[in-house]
Amino acid sequence: SSTSTSSLPTIGLIPGDGIGHEVIPAARRILETVLPGIPLVDLDAGFATFERTGKALPPSTVQVLRDQCQGALFGAVSSPIHKVAGYSSPIVQLRKELDLYANVRPVVNKKAFNASGEQVGCDLVIVRENTECLYVKQERLETDANGESIAFATRQISQRASRRITETALRLAQQRAASRSSGTSLLTVVHKSNVLSVTDGLFRETARAVFAAAGSPSAVKIEDQLVDSMVYRLFRAPDSVDVVVAPNLYGDILSDAAAALAGSLGLVPSANVGPSFVMGEPVHGSAPDIAGKGVANPVAAIRSAGMLLAHLGYADEAQRIDRAVEEVMTRGIATPDVPGGRASTNDVTSAVVAALQA
Amino acid sequence: SSTSTSSLPTIGLIPGDGIGHEVIPAARRILETVLPGIPLVDLDAGFATFERTGKALPPSTVQVLRDQCQGALFGAVSSPIHKVAGYSSPIVQLRKELDLYANVRPVVNKKAFNASGEQVGCDLVIVRENTECLYVKQERLETDANGESIAFATRQISQRASRRITETALRLAQQRAASRSSGTSLLTVVHKSNVLSVTDGLFRETARAVFAAAGSPSAVKIEDQLVDSMVYRLFRAPDSVDVVVAPNLYGDILSDAAAALAGSLGLVPSANVGPSFVMGEPVHGSAPDIAGKGVANPVAAIRSAGMLLAHLGYADEAQRIDRAVEEVMTRGIATPDVPGGRASTNDVTSAVVAALQA
Ligand SMILES: CC(C)[C@H](C(=O)O)[C@@H](O)C(=O)O
Ligand SMILES: CC(C)[C@H](C(=O)O)[C@@H](O)C(=O)O
Repeated sequence: SSTSTSSLPTIGLIPGDGIGHEVIPAARRILETVLPGIPLVDLDAGFATFERTGKALPPSTVQVLRDQCQGALFGAVSSPIHKVAGYSSPIVQLRKELDLYANVRPVVNKKAFNASGEQVGCDLVIVRENTECLYVKQERLETDANGESIAFATRQISQRASRRITETALRLAQQRAASRSSGTSLLTVVHKSNVLSVTDGLFRETARAVFAAAGSPSAVKIEDQLVDSMVYRLFRAPDSVDVVVAPNLYGDILSDAAAALAGSLGLVPSANVGPSFVMGEPVHGSAPDIAGKGVANPVAAIRSAGMLLAHLGYADEAQRIDRAVEEVMTRGIATPDVPGGRASTNDVTSAVVAALQA
Repeated sequence: SSTSTSSLPTIGLIPGDGIGHEVIPAARRILETVLPGIPLVDLDAGFATFERTGKALPPSTVQVLRDQCQGALFGAVSSPIHKVAGYSSPIVQLRKELDLYANVRPVVNKKAFNASGEQVGCDLVIVRENTECLYVKQERLETDANGESIAFATRQISQRASRRITETALRLAQQRAASRSSGTSLLTVVHKSNVLSVTDGLFRETARAVFAAAGSPSAVKIEDQLVDSMVYRLFRAPDSVDVVVAPNLYGDILSDAAAALAGSLGLVPSANVGPSFVMGEPVHGSAPDIAGKGVANPVAAIRSAGMLLAHLGYADEAQRIDRAVEEVMTRGIATPDVPGGRASTNDVTSAVVAALQA
């Protein structure tokens, strides 16, 4: 990826379903404002795409991302809860196909409340392994001795995936340490190895080994925490949490927990990061209940566009986006999912554009 | 189980490790106060037992529970995080050996805060499947093509286990509906069937089928929720949650989330319920950091003793315990884990005994 404006990266835009069609156009305006002329390609995926074409993730979408794009911005998809023959979640597929092994989900909220009603604030990041665990989707259905159904799923934890996700998390922890006056940061390794001694044991030991192989940097303190008590801690003492590294499903759950601290899911961005590709993605879903009403919160998608640019080497543009969003939020311009918010998707987006141009 | 005082049930007491040795003696005093002469048997299990005997759950403990007891009270165990050859968590074993398939974890706190700092209160119960999911502990370690470790675990979800846990949850939901002026309750089925369409799909469909087989009782509204957004909801709108039924690991995580709403893990009781046996168990762990200091919160264990008695048919005694605990807490007599608490384990226990005798 380049930082020269003469060779701007090409970004694929995949709105998906529901409010994806509202928040991705919002993020597009922001991208076009901070990097005029940036090449953007519209791409299909999602449940509606599945209903139309029989494929939730058309091969052409993957092909264009691979051949023409350096990054992408994904909206949200409406995954059916019932099993639908032939359907498979396109976001889970994309993460695997493009080897986007790290799902980085920062939550910063000076006004976060703990479960005792104290405003303690939080500034944390969940680094979620993004390719394995129960997401390998190896499931089978059998019949037991009494003729009843019994289903099995495989959970996979590999040394390789555990190592590279911890390497990502440790790099982040070192960057955070370096940017602070204290010069330190905390890396929490989440697992459930009191029950899953082999799989989560491997995750935990690999994480420890990565830390040791990096020379046990004194700026970073490493600790472990069981996933159940990690959720407890996120709500009792979110200010004690810094960088969290976790296997896929725990990371999924922990990032929703962290999103609750942000005030709304509609505020939380993420980046799916691989060796040669990055995809921004709001943490929220397709929200069919509010889709088409013009009130979807564009902030998570806009912030995801910022994370995307930061990962592509456009740190200044990313920072400008963050500051503009911050300014708009401070002025109380927010959609109804945010306590007190009354603005539309468009109002918020236009306010961010205006702040960027001011 | 009998309600005649002439044939009091025999209860096994299993302190386990750490603060289990403080909170179980506290609960013993309460049992002896409300049911004088109740036969109690002291039993071994835990990591210290493992170190001494090579078995975390001695066969004699299971034998005595099976042959002589109608119920038990379990403290907590210190499960090693590292894999220790031959060690297996005794609580997980006990749940399986005694077929204690339902883990019922109520959290009631009028003063619970949501993540926006609003005091909204909560009165909910997590009904956790207690015998399968990833707790079947079928794990294996292999070597991949590059000579690196790769581990697998099996997650099992059966129609039978999903049916009986939903039956338990539905009964509870019906009881709660009947006890309310509104005459209604809400049953939330938690799953992740957008990813695990076979295993969690089976859980969800079985839950729906149980509801239909019961004639879709109009007093109970049934709904589903993805596990990640369920955690989010617990912290955004805990007052909207009533009865939650979930597979084992999700239930483990959700009950710690709910415990955060209670103010402290030290306040949350549970009952592990099977067809012919019930075991009370505080939700907290062995807390090695505070063990032996006399400050462990006995409330979770005392409330678990209350749940145990309720399940054995001693509803009045159970209610007396609940009210006595409530009174002591209202008077601000609490251990330091509760915001503002300064009392010792002994102070709190004695205050509950006094309230029972008043
Ligand atoms: C939509 C779903 C498959 C997805 C996941 O579980 O990863 C979502 O919850 C997320 O966090 O991105
Ligand atoms: C100690 C551990 C095995 C146990 C569990 O995971 O079930 C605990 O967290 C609980 O909730 O009772």
